[in-house]
Formats: sequence, structure tokens, C-alpha cells
Amino acid sequence: MTVYQLDAAMVRDAVTAARPDSPDDEEAVSSAFARAAWSVLCEPGDGVAGDVVAACGADRALSLLLERADPQRWLDAGGGRLDVGAAEVAAGIERWSPRLSARGVVSALTSAARLGARLVLPGDAAWPSGADDLGRHAPLALWVRGRLAALEPPGGSVAVVGSRDSTAYGEHMAIEIAGGLGDRGFSVVSGAAYGIDAAAHRAALAVKRTTVAFVAGGVDRAYPAGHRDLLTRIAAYGAVVAELPCGASPTRWRFLQRNRLIAACSQAVVVVEAGRRSGSLNTAGHAAALGRPLGAVPGPATSALSAGCHRLLREYDAACVTSADEVAELALGRLPTEQPTLLEGMADDPDAVRVLDALSPRSARAADELARRTGLAPRTVAATLGLLALGGRVRESATGWVRA
Amino acid sequence: MTVYQLDAAMVRDAVTAARPDSPDDEEAVSSAFARAAWSVLCEPGDGVAGDVVAACGADRALSLLLERADPQRWLDAGGGRLDVGAAEVAAGIERWSPRLSARGVVSALTSAARLGARLVLPGDAAWPSGADDLGRHAPLALWVRGRLAALEPPGGSVAVVGSRDSTAYGEHMAIEIAGGLGDRGFSVVSGAAYGIDAAAHRAALAVKRTTVAFVAGGVDRAYPAGHRDLLTRIAAYGAVVAELPCGASPTRWRFLQRNRLIAACSQAVVVVEAGRRSGSLNTAGHAAALGRPLGAVPGPATSALSAGCHRLLREYDAACVTSADEVAELALGRLPTEQPTLLEGMADDPDAVRVLDALSPRSARAADELARRTGLAPRTVAATLGLLALGGRVRESATGWVRA
Repeated sequence: MTVYQLDAAMVRDAVTAARPDSPDDEEAVSSAFARAAWSVLCEPGDGVAGDVVAACGADRALSLLLERADPQRWLDAGGGRLDVGAAEVAAGIERWSPRLSARGVVSALTSAARLGARLVLPGDAAWPSGADDLGRHAPLALWVRGRLAALEPPGGSVAVVGSRDSTAYGEHMAIEIAGGLGDRGFSVVSGAAYGIDAAAHRAALAVKRTTVAFVAGGVDRAYPAGHRDLLTRIAAYGAVVAELPCGASPTRWRFLQRNRLIAACSQAVVVVEAGRRSGSLNTAGHAAALGRPLGAVPGPATSALSAGCHRLLREYDAACVTSADEVAELALGRLPTEQPTLLEGMADDPDAVRVLDALSPRSARAADELARRTGLAPRTVAATLGLLALGGRVRESATGWVRA
Repeated sequence: MTVYQLDAAMVRDAVTAARPDSPDDEEAVSSAFARAAWSVLCEPGDGVAGDVVAACGADRALSLLLERADPQRWLDAGGGRLDVGAAEVAAGIERWSPRLSARGVVSALTSAARLGARLVLPGDAAWPSGADDLGRHAPLALWVRGRLAALEPPGGSVAVVGSRDSTAYGEHMAIEIAGGLGDRGFSVVSGAAYGIDAAAHRAALAVKRTTVAFVAGGVDRAYPAGHRDLLTRIAAYGAVVAELPCGASPTRWRFLQRNRLIAACSQAVVVVEAGRRSGSLNTAGHAAALGRPLGAVPGPATSALSAGCHRLLREYDAACVTSADEVAELALGRLPTEQPTLLEGMADDPDAVRVLDALSPRSARAADELARRTGLAPRTVAATLGLLALGGRVRESATGWVRA
């Protein structure tokens, strides 16, 4: 390990502290250190970084950056697998270089270890496979506080997101849906924000199920500060996950990029309550782009905080979901089945409807009178009266038929 | 005119009383009388009656029925245009014969005339063209109380329907949508029931626009009785329309069949509020079957009276509509346009978002510090700061940049 001119033992100590159960051969350690470095060097969603790491390997790409190699050397190292050109690599080098600092990477690893957080990498058993659907925008590493197994839960996971300034109605729906999903074995994914996110996490915790919070800053940051205890409980029963290393603060950009992880690491995304410009619509947009089933909970048309959900129903073909059952169907890819009863309006046989319509509970009516009233053939009236009499719904008196 | 052995002058008087502005040659009168007779003879939606009237003509078919002709003669008279076989014709004859009564037809015509109602037939200028989309189930005649021009209004018409036991929310939405549609030049079609229907009619009347009520019994019947005044006002500014002649009472069967007329005679159908088994879902089913655009107004997922609307959104691909504007778009066939902004989350340039995130309103920060914080190339930071400074959103102090 020559990168950053760091002592190999220091690198190994830092990496194994944050990855205590992972292979510690030199190659594995070097690669993990380089991935940690890339999570420090670039902002989330940097597609050029994704490309060079995929084509050259994280440690080779890091060496090239440290050596101040010209773009052509990067392209050569990529061996034709690099989709981007020299200009994009040059722009990347300019972006990444200001953050080159060995201390930053070591500190990210040791801060994580001190907190009990882990560095999780592609190829690890705990790596959430859905994240790879982001392609060149996939995270290069994830920092996880809590239970690693929560990232790829056996029962599947559903994102339940929504507005920070939720209404009592929205919170009620978030609790119903997230609690019900927990009861059905799903993990509940959200963003740990005030309002709908918090209600969803709390409902999952209340039924003692796994819940995962993707946060926009480092996992050491309690954001919002009022959710410090909630984040600790989420980490105890599930996981708090960040793409940025410890110490990173949440920014608007990082919130938007964090949203893509919520969508990618869930089987379906449900927006419970959202204004027309809510950030949760951005999460919905990522879900749609990734082909994840997208649901929206309807609310009063008069509520500004349901306008975003209605926009998803109207313009983005989101499924209308009103219960945990319906969300579970959405996540399992079961399309709602059309009920053939809509046109019938009632389950009764149409002839029976017409005969019952024509009967009175008091005045007895003869069969020929019923034929005239119903517009049915006398034979049909007779057969229908017979069936209805068997069911106890009509009876024959001395002067004709009455409704029972 | 030999049918029913009626005097020709009596037939002519009866017909011209109910069709004062229509041609009164013998053929026209005979055909109109026969159509009136068929509206007495069969229940709404009788497809076999529709077939024989289309294939043989209304008066020839009526003569055959009066002559007690065997089914083969009907098939011969249809000249190969009849889709049904002898068995179906025989069953039809059995259904229709019990109601054969000359008095019934004459009384239907004279009762209508006494009320000022008109008999409207296919081919009349006032005939609503949408009704023909029902094919063999199209009405054979319509009885209209009010303004004939209301049946085919120049601005188009939209059905606004829903539950009888509506909530204040549902009525509010019906008023907003129906009133707004009226303001936009649409006629409002509904079923004159309590609840949503009444709110829709009243809202259209309040903005002095045309509204049309399709009723399940005769136009002389006030049903529900509490809507006698409302029906009179609807007839004054629009029309009350029935498929059944005066004197006919509304039955469950006739309500269901009436719903197909509401759907057929509108450019779009909107369900405002409906329980899971509301009759308005039957209207929605007809709209879907006819290919009419179908909208549903969302409501709280916790409201049993919105469950039917949510079912339409979820299972029947109804459009989610929350305002008169959205309903008008639906009726005009304008698909909602996908806004490209959903994934962006905000209109700002992403670099500007990141630079603004990294700036403080108090502590000045140097450009290289901003490059490190944003993860952007120093060049990009400099260019972005320049643009933001032009917009007055950042300013440079002696020690660096601050957010304005």
C-alpha cells in the first residue's frame, strides 16, 4: 500500500477496525481503503467516479489521482472499458483533487469504528443488491451503523416516505402502512426526517420489525438533532446508512442523492403525504426511473399536503394505495385484479332484481301482472319466482306473490 | 296506421302533441308512434328489441308483434340484418307481449304532452349522438322535459356522479367541480339523486349553466320526492330525461340501466365520492366499457365514502382529478403532461445547489475551501460563484465568499 505514503500497518488497522469480519489480505485491505477514500473524494452520484472505479479498480484509480496522472493514462488503465472521454476524466480530477487527504480517509475509518459503524462494499454479503441498479451512479461504499443484515432483509423492504410537515392524517396513514408492512415481514426504509419518515420508522419499531434509515450526512451526525434517540433505536433494531463518511454534513445536494438510495434499496416506494414540491417526489422520481413500483396514498383534494401524491397518481401512473395490504401487493408485483362486478352493480341475477323490484311486501301480485311490470317473459317470471321462493325471498299467497 | 286498430287521427294527435315541431307525414307519425310503443313494451337495455327495431324498423316490428307472427317471419323481415336467432326472438315476444296495450302508448304520449315533455327519437336534431355508442343497447326513444337543446350542448357535457349519503367534503368537491365545469362552458350531467348528484346539479344551476338529469322512472315522477323543486329547476335551465314513458316508476333495474345513459351521453364521467358498492361505480363501469374518459376524486384513505373512488383509481385506471381544470382536461382528451422536474427536485442548476449549500451567510469561505466542501472542480466553483454573484445570491468579502 503506497497510496498517500501511509504506513501499511496504519492502513490495515484503520480498515480492519471498520471491517472487522472481512478478509484482511493485502489486496482486500488496499481495495477497501481505496473505496473509503473515494467515498471521501467525491460527492454522491458522481458518474465519472463510478466509471473510473468500475473500469480501473478503486485502488488503481486512487493511485492515478495521487500520481497526478494525465487523463490518457486513466483511459489506458481502463483498458477500453471506460465509457467517458479524456475531458470528463480531466474534469473529475479537478473535482476530486481538492479533497485528497490521507488524514480524511483514516479519520473516516477510525471515526466509524469508534461508533461501531461498518464500511460495507460491493461484493460483501451485506451489500444491498438493489444499489447496483443505479449503474454508474451506484454508491462506491456505504457506512452502516446498526445491523448489517438489515440492508438485505429476507422479507424484502419497502420505502415509506413523505412530507416533513405532515398532518395527523398523513401520520396515521404512515403508521398504518409501515406497521402493517412490518407485520407482513417487510423492512421499512425511510429517511429519518420529521413527519412521515419518523412515523414510518416508529411504526416499524413499534411492531419490533427491521427499519432502515438512509441519511444525507455521516452516520455519526444526528440529523435532525431532535431525532438523536430515534436514530439510536433504528440502529439498534435495523440500520442507519450513509454514503458519505463520518463527519460529513447533510446538504441539499446530498439529500437529493440520498433519495436515490432509498428508492434503489427498496422493492417499492410509497409516498404517504407530500406537497406539490416535496422532496419525497424526488424519491418517487428515482423509483420511477429505476422501474421500482411506486405507490401514492390519496388524501383530501383540498389538502395541499396531498397535492404531491395526487400529482403522482395523475401524472406518473403511481398506484393508488390505501392500506398495508395494497402496498404489500404492489411490492410483490401483484397487479390489482379487476373485479367483474363493477358493471353489474350487485351480485344478484338481473331477472331476480327485476322480479323483486316488481313485488310488494304487502299487496299480492299475480304472475302475469309481474310479467307486465318487469317486462320479462311469463316463463322467466315463473322460474325466477321459484328460485326466489327457495331462497325464502318471496312467498305465494292465495291472491298472488309477495316479497318476504 | 293499423296497429292496435287505432283510429289514424287519434294516433296523429297523440304523436304530434308529444312531437309538435316534427314532420307529421304518415310515415313519420307511424314510426314515432311505434318507437313510443317500444319504449312502453320493453325494459331499458333490451338488446333483442334493439336488434329487431334496427333490422325491421320500429313499426314493422310492432306489427309483427301485434300479429303474433312466428319468429321466422321476424327473421325474414330483418332480411339477414338480424344478429339474433329464432330462440331469442321467441323469448323477446314472450317478454314484450304481456305489455301490449294501445292505451298505454297513447297515454304515454298524452301524459308527456300535458307535462310539456317531448318524445325525442334517433335522427332528431336533439338526439344525443353519444347514446348511439350503446349499439344494440341504445335507448329506442327518450322522453325529455325541459330544453331539447340541452341534450347535445355545444360546449360538451361531463357527468358528475357519486354517493347519495355523501360527506360535506364530497359535496364541496362536487360543487367545485360542477360549478367550475359550468364556468368552462360544459353542461353537467347527473342522476338527480340525493348527495353528490344534487350538489352537482345545483352548482351548475348556481352558475346559470345547463344541467341534465337522467332519471330512472318517467319524467313526470318526482324521484326522490324531496327533489320535486330541483327537478323543476333542472327542466327550466336544462333537461330531465327518461328512457321510460310517463307513469313508469323507478326500479333498481332501471337505475342500473339509467346509469348507462349518463355515461353514454357525456364526454367524460367523474365519480366524486363513492363507497365500495356505490351505484356510481356502475356508471363508472359503463363509462369504461364505452371508452369514455373516467375520473375519480381522491379522498381520505380512512373514509369509507372514498373507497369506491380509490378502487377506480387503483383497479380501473381512472384518472385522479382534484379540480374542475383537471376534469376539463380529461373531457377534452388532454393527457396530463409529465413534468420533467420531478427528478430534479428543484429548478436550480445542481452546481449552484452545491455551492450555495457550502456557503455560510456569516463566515466567509475561500474558493478553494468551497471546492473541497462541494466536491466540485475549482474552475466550476469560480464560474458558479460568478453566476450566483450576478444574481445577487452570493457576495465576495475581503476574506472570501458569503451567502447573500
